[in-house]
Amino acid sequence: MSAADYLGTVRDRDWEQLESGTLRIAMISLGWWTREQAIPAVEDSEFCETTVLVSRSREKASAAAAEIPTVEAALTYEEFTDGEATDEYDAVYVCTPNALHLPYAEAAAEHGKAILCEKPVESTRERAERLVEATEEVPLMVAYRMQTDPQVRRMRELVAEGAIGDPVAVHGSMSQQMLETVSDDADQWRLDPDLVGYGASVMDLGIYPLNTARFVLGADPVSVTAQMHSADAAFGDVPDQHAAFTIRFDDGTQAACTASQHAAYTGHLRVVGTDGELVLEPVFLGQPEQTLTLHSDGRRLEVADGRRDVMRDEMTEEFDYFADRVLRDAPIHPDGDHALVDMRALEAIYDAAETGTTVSV
Amino acid sequence: MSAADYLGTVRDRDWEQLESGTLRIAMISLGWWTREQAIPAVEDSEFCETTVLVSRSREKASAAAAEIPTVEAALTYEEFTDGEATDEYDAVYVCTPNALHLPYAEAAAEHGKAILCEKPVESTRERAERLVEATEEVPLMVAYRMQTDPQVRRMRELVAEGAIGDPVAVHGSMSQQMLETVSDDADQWRLDPDLVGYGASVMDLGIYPLNTARFVLGADPVSVTAQMHSADAAFGDVPDQHAAFTIRFDDGTQAACTASQHAAYTGHLRVVGTDGELVLEPVFLGQPEQTLTLHSDGRRLEVADGRRDVMRDEMTEEFDYFADRVLRDAPIHPDGDHALVDMRALEAIYDAAETGTTVSV
Repeated sequence: MSAADYLGTVRDRDWEQLESGTLRIAMISLGWWTREQAIPAVEDSEFCETTVLVSRSREKASAAAAEIPTVEAALTYEEFTDGEATDEYDAVYVCTPNALHLPYAEAAAEHGKAILCEKPVESTRERAERLVEATEEVPLMVAYRMQTDPQVRRMRELVAEGAIGDPVAVHGSMSQQMLETVSDDADQWRLDPDLVGYGASVMDLGIYPLNTARFVLGADPVSVTAQMHSADAAFGDVPDQHAAFTIRFDDGTQAACTASQHAAYTGHLRVVGTDGELVLEPVFLGQPEQTLTLHSDGRRLEVADGRRDVMRDEMTEEFDYFADRVLRDAPIHPDGDHALVDMRALEAIYDAAETGTTVSV
Repeated sequence: MSAADYLGTVRDRDWEQLESGTLRIAMISLGWWTREQAIPAVEDSEFCETTVLVSRSREKASAAAAEIPTVEAALTYEEFTDGEATDEYDAVYVCTPNALHLPYAEAAAEHGKAILCEKPVESTRERAERLVEATEEVPLMVAYRMQTDPQVRRMRELVAEGAIGDPVAVHGSMSQQMLETVSDDADQWRLDPDLVGYGASVMDLGIYPLNTARFVLGADPVSVTAQMHSADAAFGDVPDQHAAFTIRFDDGTQAACTASQHAAYTGHLRVVGTDGELVLEPVFLGQPEQTLTLHSDGRRLEVADGRRDVMRDEMTEEFDYFADRVLRDAPIHPDGDHALVDMRALEAIYDAAETGTTVSV
């Protein structure tokens, strides 16, 4: 297929094999992301349905449940862990603070449920390894929504077919005004090292260019360098209000990335190859007019796919892909082992900044 | 002035004070850059004229001179150094391999001539310091053509007036297929450590995002990290066929940059601030349709200034700015001390890659 053809098919699902079916989801935590993105995305999905809500308080869960006709049960975390209402769901979506992924994923695995776990998969490499080990018997997908974004998948195909020659360099950035965007105080766990893990901006944002570069290149990180700093008092407990880092991949490609929790709401991904470059922008934050541009041989092909709510669409794609795999009992990618590579890279990036050295992944 | 007004005036010179005058230039070396860019740019300039050509062989110089009516003398390097034809020129443009800037700049200073010296100002920090010291008595400008590019100057003004809030992160890349672009074998000094200095891609290309970021931010580098590698045999004597590096600046901004001598002919510069971002693309390599884009508050302002030959226009601006300053006996920026900061940063970037550590500048 030619580059122009690829760019013209940016809305097509290239993975769907299921014809019908329903995966019943328990939403673990009802923070703003679950309420504003995940639940609406599941409403839009073909193969998923929200049937259980799990929250800190039964009141909060019940109030939310009243607005969603498909919900059969509203549970506290303790009730969920104890195995209540296990007949009412087939899978869980874990969207708690990072350091709580492990106990709820463990509980879900004990109940024999499939798991869609938010990224980073846990707060530290060690806890992530425990999570992956504890969930070996059930399907586990880590929620890298970029990997089921149609434009990102086209970008990967274009790289693989040589549309820009051999990849040489990647640029990626992601930033937001966290204290404004994540307005719910309860979600400020991102500034608490016990809950977030290594830090604030690379764990939460930098993981997007890191993982999307891995996916687009089909390559894994080998070594990293990093500089970080926190200027404002609110970021006093984390090293990385702002971060810049480089990644060398096992195919020789080198990435230069930035992440910030105190900058404009924006992101981009650029892959420079020996014969051209691909740019996806804006990306990562669900802004409209996400546009994939191919520069090659003096030509410039540009395709905005017209999605108005890119984030919700990405979440819908992710949930349907998860359901497609779980219902067909098919292998899932990105799985836990894939996510562990990111956890090693994240640990290395924070180590690199702290020790002032290049760190192997 | 508003952002829209700035973007609308991207062709205006904001520095010209001279009304008339002519600076007579001796071109030191007749490599492809001098022949194809510098001499045509001087032909286009208002205040410069090429009156002397200096080359390895008198034959080459005379043959080139025959095609340029303004040329009064064609010299060998030795004749130039010995002070021949000093009445025929007021200033020199030094465009030799990096490690030959010092002897010809020294000679020019001894002859009392103003100097426009290509960047990097020399091959190593030590030699650059010697060059700056040896030329203290004459006007010295280092040829950072981006600093007199009208769009780059508007970008700097927009940053200074707060159009994107406080700058947080910079991305910059520059790459070319050196073995194809720089086709003249004699110009392959870029792969000879004795002539090029620390390496091939950061010295020759990475210096563009480094220096342009400095100029646009009004900030200087504090510390750097880097990863480099050379894969192809032709690059066996230099560490950086490809490079990725980070720079922390003294205003807290952090840059993530890449440079490659074996990738597509392309470059970009992005500044992300707390309230928006500015992107200049394509840039550095003189491609047409160089476009300055401002994203802020959901608005997107985009201005391509319509220049067809951006490189030649940039070189003309640079020469006229240099003449404006020399003929008026006015301070020059970028001067030698400015260039020495880059040399310290370049040395640090290569040190960082070699030692695997974060290096202070």
